[in-house]
Amino acid sequence: MSSNSFGIAFKLTTFGESHGKAIGGIIEGCPPNLILDLDYINHEIARRKPSNAFWATPRNEEDVVVWLSGLSNTTTNGAPIAFMIENQNIKKQDYNNLSSAYRPSHGDFTWESKYNTPPTTGGGRLSARETLTRVVAGAIAKQWLLKSGIKITAWTHSIGSISIPGDILIETQNHELNALCCPDPQTAELMENLLRGIVEKGDSVGGIVRCAIEGLPVGLGEPLFDKTEALLGHAMLSIPAVKGFEIGSGFEGTKMTGSCHNDPFIIKDQKITTSSNHSGGVLGGITNGSNIDFKVAFKPVSTIKLPQKTIDRNGIETTLEASGRHDACVVPRAVVIVEAMAALVIADLMLRQKQLEP
Amino acid sequence: MSSNSFGIAFKLTTFGESHGKAIGGIIEGCPPNLILDLDYINHEIARRKPSNAFWATPRNEEDVVVWLSGLSNTTTNGAPIAFMIENQNIKKQDYNNLSSAYRPSHGDFTWESKYNTPPTTGGGRLSARETLTRVVAGAIAKQWLLKSGIKITAWTHSIGSISIPGDILIETQNHELNALCCPDPQTAELMENLLRGIVEKGDSVGGIVRCAIEGLPVGLGEPLFDKTEALLGHAMLSIPAVKGFEIGSGFEGTKMTGSCHNDPFIIKDQKITTSSNHSGGVLGGITNGSNIDFKVAFKPVSTIKLPQKTIDRNGIETTLEASGRHDACVVPRAVVIVEAMAALVIADLMLRQKQLEP
Amino acid sequence: MSSNSFGIAFKLTTFGESHGKAIGGIIEGCPPNLILDLDYINHEIARRKPSNAFWATPRNEEDVVVWLSGLSNTTTNGAPIAFMIENQNIKKQDYNNLSSAYRPSHGDFTWESKYNTPPTTGGGRLSARETLTRVVAGAIAKQWLLKSGIKITAWTHSIGSISIPGDILIETQNHELNALCCPDPQTAELMENLLRGIVEKGDSVGGIVRCAIEGLPVGLGEPLFDKTEALLGHAMLSIPAVKGFEIGSGFEGTKMTGSCHNDPFIIKDQKITTSSNHSGGVLGGITNGSNIDFKVAFKPVSTIKLPQKTIDRNGIETTLEASGRHDACVVPRAVVIVEAMAALVIADLMLRQKQLEP
Amino acid sequence: MSSNSFGIAFKLTTFGESHGKAIGGIIEGCPPNLILDLDYINHEIARRKPSNAFWATPRNEEDVVVWLSGLSNTTTNGAPIAFMIENQNIKKQDYNNLSSAYRPSHGDFTWESKYNTPPTTGGGRLSARETLTRVVAGAIAKQWLLKSGIKITAWTHSIGSISIPGDILIETQNHELNALCCPDPQTAELMENLLRGIVEKGDSVGGIVRCAIEGLPVGLGEPLFDKTEALLGHAMLSIPAVKGFEIGSGFEGTKMTGSCHNDPFIIKDQKITTSSNHSGGVLGGITNGSNIDFKVAFKPVSTIKLPQKTIDRNGIETTLEASGRHDACVVPRAVVIVEAMAALVIADLMLRQKQLEP
Repeated sequence: MSSNSFGIAFKLTTFGESHGKAIGGIIEGCPPNLILDLDYINHEIARRKPSNAFWATPRNEEDVVVWLSGLSNTTTNGAPIAFMIENQNIKKQDYNNLSSAYRPSHGDFTWESKYNTPPTTGGGRLSARETLTRVVAGAIAKQWLLKSGIKITAWTHSIGSISIPGDILIETQNHELNALCCPDPQTAELMENLLRGIVEKGDSVGGIVRCAIEGLPVGLGEPLFDKTEALLGHAMLSIPAVKGFEIGSGFEGTKMTGSCHNDPFIIKDQKITTSSNHSGGVLGGITNGSNIDFKVAFKPVSTIKLPQKTIDRNGIETTLEASGRHDACVVPRAVVIVEAMAALVIADLMLRQKQLEP
Repeated sequence: MSSNSFGIAFKLTTFGESHGKAIGGIIEGCPPNLILDLDYINHEIARRKPSNAFWATPRNEEDVVVWLSGLSNTTTNGAPIAFMIENQNIKKQDYNNLSSAYRPSHGDFTWESKYNTPPTTGGGRLSARETLTRVVAGAIAKQWLLKSGIKITAWTHSIGSISIPGDILIETQNHELNALCCPDPQTAELMENLLRGIVEKGDSVGGIVRCAIEGLPVGLGEPLFDKTEALLGHAMLSIPAVKGFEIGSGFEGTKMTGSCHNDPFIIKDQKITTSSNHSGGVLGGITNGSNIDFKVAFKPVSTIKLPQKTIDRNGIETTLEASGRHDACVVPRAVVIVEAMAALVIADLMLRQKQLEP
Repeated sequence: MSSNSFGIAFKLTTFGESHGKAIGGIIEGCPPNLILDLDYINHEIARRKPSNAFWATPRNEEDVVVWLSGLSNTTTNGAPIAFMIENQNIKKQDYNNLSSAYRPSHGDFTWESKYNTPPTTGGGRLSARETLTRVVAGAIAKQWLLKSGIKITAWTHSIGSISIPGDILIETQNHELNALCCPDPQTAELMENLLRGIVEKGDSVGGIVRCAIEGLPVGLGEPLFDKTEALLGHAMLSIPAVKGFEIGSGFEGTKMTGSCHNDPFIIKDQKITTSSNHSGGVLGGITNGSNIDFKVAFKPVSTIKLPQKTIDRNGIETTLEASGRHDACVVPRAVVIVEAMAALVIADLMLRQKQLEP
Repeated sequence: MSSNSFGIAFKLTTFGESHGKAIGGIIEGCPPNLILDLDYINHEIARRKPSNAFWATPRNEEDVVVWLSGLSNTTTNGAPIAFMIENQNIKKQDYNNLSSAYRPSHGDFTWESKYNTPPTTGGGRLSARETLTRVVAGAIAKQWLLKSGIKITAWTHSIGSISIPGDILIETQNHELNALCCPDPQTAELMENLLRGIVEKGDSVGGIVRCAIEGLPVGLGEPLFDKTEALLGHAMLSIPAVKGFEIGSGFEGTKMTGSCHNDPFIIKDQKITTSSNHSGGVLGGITNGSNIDFKVAFKPVSTIKLPQKTIDRNGIETTLEASGRHDACVVPRAVVIVEAMAALVIADLMLRQKQLEP
């Protein structure tokens, strides 16, 4: 039933709980004879790590990838690629008073109800630490895609009500410009001010990640049910804290008329393309050669320092105050996760498309 | 690779093109010994049909379901349920000047590029007529879910910029109140006025469908990758013309702080529940017993009567004027499709959850 | 859970019960722009049909394939290929005294127990009539494979204790030589004599189908779990009445020593090949370019005219005497079914191998 | 495409090459709150280990299972169970003169051709060492099945031409009686004599493993394509060196008449059962409550000490003499692997059957 797997042709299967021995995954379908740049993978992991920024948790995770199989030196050899990252820095005491009370808007309650397991057993699987395995797999997918000229770039589009005004030319922007991963310096400053207030209050805030995929061929996507946007939506909505996904004109586009929204076909550089991109790069669920452009909505982090009313495992009302430190906003760290999941989707569709080659 | 299938335990596989002999599907996993109300299925089909409203296409489709297997009389017997609906009323001439020019924001171009097929062969698979098979399967899933007290209700939330103000109590509303499927009569009137102008101009407009799922147990959803919202997002984004999906607080929720957004756990009727529902009924990808609440963004219909610049199959610039009649807005007809896809997701998760029963 | 589907990249999903309206299937993954020879498909269907031979049931089935989708004229267009064959000649009276008593070694009892359905509902899905859908799909797969020079040939190897002596050169034999599909005329005569006695007694007898696949490239097969022989075994053991499968040296090979059994590598026509073929064309689950060579064991048909002790649905001991006419031996009709399932496996592996192309 | 996974509801995904860092797997779908006996798992691993018997390779593998996730102490917690076994005792020199020449009847040649990888990279994935991961997963499945009264027992049925005469009552036999896993002491003695001669010559020999599954409910198996025997056949034929599978009467049954072969239904202990078991426990692909009874044919081990003609990677004829020690017969060590794969099939079918519970 494969609820721990994502993808069909390029497939990631993951394991691990935040408080167990290790997390990791198995990647199937990665083309053989691909020379991996392991430094790049470590770089991607670093992008996801809690930074030294004031708004991020200072848990000093040392995330060392151990490669278990599938590589001959650093070259893929056709066997499944398996890797793990051992868990360290597990301060169980930080979670002590969590263990008796249900954290509001956290998955402890639902996991324990679903699996009928005792407290604290399941939370570890739902911990955002699992996203590390997505980043590792995504970093491999990205390297392979880049050989076909496909580049995936995400960035912080908004935090709370502060968002980048207008469109930005992603081609010329550096999304690793600052710790907030916001390519517009002025907006980044406003975001930083907002976060300062949030952190002081012990609260958290949500935001939006935007992602562009450049260099795509025409023809990726598998209608009816595995349309490119359907797989991207599935991928993004499987990331912890995501509450929404939109592609191209998205929700705003519902207010437009067809005559404005339709993207006229034109000839450019002797190829068929469109003069606008409200579609966000997909027509009928299949890529049309334009950039894919989508947004992902992240809710505010549920773990906050402010006291919260809740009930405990005995059904008694109680007040919860988290004592550990947690991210005030997940968005900057989520940027690389969004890229990773997008890479898994596109790599999968690239391989599935090979089936149609003569 | 199953791009024509949706679901794992409760699974629909579809076939058919709009201009072929028939469309239809195979439903696997439907529990045996379920007595189907075939009239209800026909009722659901009628909800999707072009109404006599001024804003809808008057193609007089006679959609008669032929049951091919899986039923003994009207009772499911454990074998796969197969059905078909023969295509009628195929006026090929309406599509004549479509065949040489690519319709802007339509999937002809991408389908032909993907499969390397000649003009007009593929468009038929991407036609919205395929959604009829989803409605039939969804109507079966709904009947089964209702036996467990699960009810799925969608309605027109907005058309263009006109949307229902505030929240509505779906429990007391009748979403079949009017042809627009808008439970708020005042909003419906405004929508009708808007549509009148759109139709006069030969243009189209988008809108949002909102959906509520009541009566859910705690525990549905399969993390990490098959979280309830991930499957719902996948399902909705596979529907033609959908550009966005959000659950609970969605994109608006990104502006909130955690202290406001978190849903406090409370005890009510001796059961654990929450006093607000920003989560939209899911925590950690698993249902928490509250109503699921999500929205689906539909872009404006791409086929319009207004002349549009485009290019034809020979790469020559041309102007396209559609001569047939088409929907000015797909949203009211999409309401039942959204319900159907939601039903497929929930039925699938209900069956997958059975695996965990002792 | 897809128990009605076979294959991953080239995938058949079937429906239908022998006493329902129709049987049929959906084929996904068939390459587009393949011009189908529909006459060939009808020819294959005819091979499976009860012949006029004395040992076969004379039920006069008119098996007309209705093509529902996926073809533009007779060319595949990338959409799923759906087809159906309506059931005719349903003489319910023949099955009347079957309905109260369980037929020995037939699946009525297990189906009804599994699905908790009333008598006669399930038997229809387990009827050998379902194999017709395999033959149709296999006839399409074969046509595509032949374009790559891959040819699949099965024949009657044995009936009861009468078997073809020694090896035959399949390249020069005509397996459609006679109604028994036995390429050795002398053996065929002995088989016919054997069957005459069996028919006179109202009994039945088993036999073995042997199959060769020529023209294979090196490299098909997906270890660890989807080795070529594992998929072939799965395919064959899903055919009604099959009790065994062996490839290459099979069960006899267990008696050999490694020094005799190992196939020495040699160079021939500037390509690597082997001087013997005990492996049956696969090494490590992957084709080695030699012919695949396997055998399939069919038990005697369970429906016989001789009176049999059994119990009825009320748990009362009874004696069953089948009144309709049935095949005395299923093997000759099964030859084309074995070929069809082999074709589905190889077509699937050919498409999966495309994923590895640069 | 999941060629490294087996099972749908109870699912094993494996990784690892014999000469890499580790082998291991991820088990999904194992019911939560199952207390595992880790000693039993180690016992099963020991059964697969090279014994001290003269006919087995003395490679002193220390196979220590490291549990990475899915267990809280020794109790399953609903998260995927991941484990690994680090590779030790890797004597690369033993394989030196293997690296230039293709070993006859070994998968080096086909793996390298398929993946286009350099020598020695792939052989490691096809090494029989991978079966260790099957044994670990099977030992977990067995523990769960035993709670439902289902017991799986395999034994050495034949080595070379020496086989157990007649049927044995598996209920009263101890298949762990001797190093050969042959429950008949007299046959075991003959087998040992045979093996002594084989070892002296530096040759190898094949054999047959037989397996019985007791305590099954009626109703397991998923027709049409996932019949119990089809899944068992698939499972067994995915084990290295397997060339054949038969259930119940198998190939011998093809010689019988229906009147002898059919298993009459009778009432016993107020339940429906059969007075013979030619079917081997399945009817129409569904278990009928009788014991499942099947045989698996293993070819002689391909690696032998006798010199063999072959060609090397440069296409030059050469003679190969293996210098390391290898098993003279794989059958006794394969017994636990056959049990493990059978357990995976039955556990999967048990979980899939839950979908039908009301």
